[in-house]
Amino acid sequence: MSELLAHAQSAYNEFKSRGLALDITRGKPSAEQLDLSAALLTAVTNDTATSPRGTDTRNYGGLKGLLELREIFGELLKVPAEQLFAQGNSSLSLMSQVLQFLLIHGPAGGQPWVTDAPNRAILCPVPGYDRHFQLAQSLGFELIAVDLDDEGPVLDQVQELTSRNEVKGMWIVPAYSNPTGVNVSARRARELAAMPAADDFVLLWDNAYALHHLGDDNQAPVLDILQICADAGNPNRVWTFASTSKITHAGAGVAFLGSSAQNMDWFAHHLSSTAIGPDKINHLRHLRFFRDAEGVRAHMRAHAAILAPKFEAVEKTLERDFAGSDQVKWTTPNGGYFITLTVPHGTATRVVTLAAEAGVTLTPAGATHPYGTDTTDSVIRIAPSMPPLAEIQLAAEGLVACIRLAIAEREHG
Amino acid sequence: MSELLAHAQSAYNEFKSRGLALDITRGKPSAEQLDLSAALLTAVTNDTATSPRGTDTRNYGGLKGLLELREIFGELLKVPAEQLFAQGNSSLSLMSQVLQFLLIHGPAGGQPWVTDAPNRAILCPVPGYDRHFQLAQSLGFELIAVDLDDEGPVLDQVQELTSRNEVKGMWIVPAYSNPTGVNVSARRARELAAMPAADDFVLLWDNAYALHHLGDDNQAPVLDILQICADAGNPNRVWTFASTSKITHAGAGVAFLGSSAQNMDWFAHHLSSTAIGPDKINHLRHLRFFRDAEGVRAHMRAHAAILAPKFEAVEKTLERDFAGSDQVKWTTPNGGYFITLTVPHGTATRVVTLAAEAGVTLTPAGATHPYGTDTTDSVIRIAPSMPPLAEIQLAAEGLVACIRLAIAEREHG
Repeated sequence: MSELLAHAQSAYNEFKSRGLALDITRGKPSAEQLDLSAALLTAVTNDTATSPRGTDTRNYGGLKGLLELREIFGELLKVPAEQLFAQGNSSLSLMSQVLQFLLIHGPAGGQPWVTDAPNRAILCPVPGYDRHFQLAQSLGFELIAVDLDDEGPVLDQVQELTSRNEVKGMWIVPAYSNPTGVNVSARRARELAAMPAADDFVLLWDNAYALHHLGDDNQAPVLDILQICADAGNPNRVWTFASTSKITHAGAGVAFLGSSAQNMDWFAHHLSSTAIGPDKINHLRHLRFFRDAEGVRAHMRAHAAILAPKFEAVEKTLERDFAGSDQVKWTTPNGGYFITLTVPHGTATRVVTLAAEAGVTLTPAGATHPYGTDTTDSVIRIAPSMPPLAEIQLAAEGLVACIRLAIAEREHG
Repeated sequence: MSELLAHAQSAYNEFKSRGLALDITRGKPSAEQLDLSAALLTAVTNDTATSPRGTDTRNYGGLKGLLELREIFGELLKVPAEQLFAQGNSSLSLMSQVLQFLLIHGPAGGQPWVTDAPNRAILCPVPGYDRHFQLAQSLGFELIAVDLDDEGPVLDQVQELTSRNEVKGMWIVPAYSNPTGVNVSARRARELAAMPAADDFVLLWDNAYALHHLGDDNQAPVLDILQICADAGNPNRVWTFASTSKITHAGAGVAFLGSSAQNMDWFAHHLSSTAIGPDKINHLRHLRFFRDAEGVRAHMRAHAAILAPKFEAVEKTLERDFAGSDQVKWTTPNGGYFITLTVPHGTATRVVTLAAEAGVTLTPAGATHPYGTDTTDSVIRIAPSMPPLAEIQLAAEGLVACIRLAIAEREHG
């Protein structure tokens, strides 16, 4: 055993002996962040359950959601309020519903994908979000990986694939992408809006982190993707999604769906057979709590004040040990919920295993790739939001020990 | 013009001249009923957002819903809590989700209905619920009417139809059926559970009104349909649905889905690709508000105290004018939200039109039948829940005038 390996083993053992139990697997908000929305819970009482425009939110009706709330988030997301529906608690469920309607009913004027596109496929920028991939896979789509560069999905790859008629769509997280933090540039957005593709090709534009800046500098702008697609002559190409899951309460927020007027008419038509209307009381809670778009922005600054030090703790610890390294790299995002760590090929799984054995749970290696398979075995997603700062600092220290040991084992074991 | 017609016309004109605007179209709770759940809105604060078993309801997780609430409604609905999921605000959306999963994925071990059953059909007991029919129609099912007798869907008709392999299911509202108030008997339930049918035939058992008694007498018992189906050797035949839409807040309640353990595993598997979890904060609100099953029962008695006089007002007015009539009949349900009025063949549409012109909005004639077509044109659904009692009394008076005029026009016009 080399001296380097022995040293790495010793450092790892020392960390492991602490008997920690830390979890940095998923992008869950911390209790401290959830406390920011304490007043939301009592923002609607029985005496204040009528909306500004006179809707008794306690009764049935209102398929598209509370208009006053759609106006606030329409301003923030750059979607006209009439074309932005406020629905239940889950944007993932809205993505599922759009895809299920396309499968069962087909796009407006088209045939159901389930019969018309039996070999359907969807493009998955990698590294990406495992739940996007899993949803599409469960609905019978082949998952095709495309690379990301610093402006978004690599256009040459995308264009070559969209020349195939069975390629029906592409996932995109345009701002602070999960997990790389990449932002789609305005230029790339225009290219994606204008490129040749099947008539019913859809960009599934998941604006999960559009408002989730980590500081005041270098904020990713919200792209007006509806206008960009309209200008490119493909107004019905994009579906936008967002939610307040990481703004107010995770799992008890409000999800939004926006698209062209024609697409939203199509969606409303099919939705009207399956639902009477969303939880308007929760919409009104959010309206009362935020008041206006600036209220949301101020709230997101309070989130950033909690989150940014956690990201810095991870980044500084990695920097201390791996600055200038060719082997270990990581992202330093300006927003979102994740740091992407890149380790030498063939070591990511080992790092995750070592970390688990030392009490630090990481997202499984490969989760960022279609079918859970990263053939390079080099990408690890770090979610520093949920544990307290002191635990994040500890987890980062442990992670460094795991990386050092995995590399040493590979080179000297 | 006969004297009878002239008299009927005069009475109608007098009513019309009052310039009323009354709406008894849909089964919406009244503001007075919604007020019963005032305390629900503030039942969870930031300091009390953790469930009895220690779940922070403000964060992600818990695909099946809050167990403590499922235990309460499991007891009320006779479904084991492990097999009863608490989800979003809409049981209709759960029905849609079950059917969409069957269409896209197929039943456990089976083929997707969308390809395997292109000519699929569903049985629709009539008179029935228009949203059931519309949902199935939108998903490509042929709607086949079957009659109801005083124990439920007429068995001979059902059995003859289920011998056809393309008949994939049947809607049922087993307690206080919408709109007739009929209860499915235990005997009929056993017959439906045991009858020959396709392996993947489903009873869509919508327990929308299971707890919605109008008084303490003659309450419809909740049938243990899961056990009945298991005893009949068809444990996976039934899906049960319910919600608190007409218990707490319409549109902001909690919907429930229950079935066999195998079916619920199948549902959870597909659901896990489309959702992270329901709004647990709202589940906890309901738990805190009700405390236990007896809390729900007491709450329903308070609803009955508001609703029963409205039903009585309609029934007494009809009784006063049409007692013993062969031409005009109506139901006197012991629960639920509707009275079904039967007028002479060919006059229901005219009654609804006359009522509309006199300011009383009724559900369109035919809405209770598949495709909105009642070939006898004789069935009218009355929903007396929402307007105040004084308005219900007025509406009933007007309705009588409309019926008299429509009959007189037909016989003497």
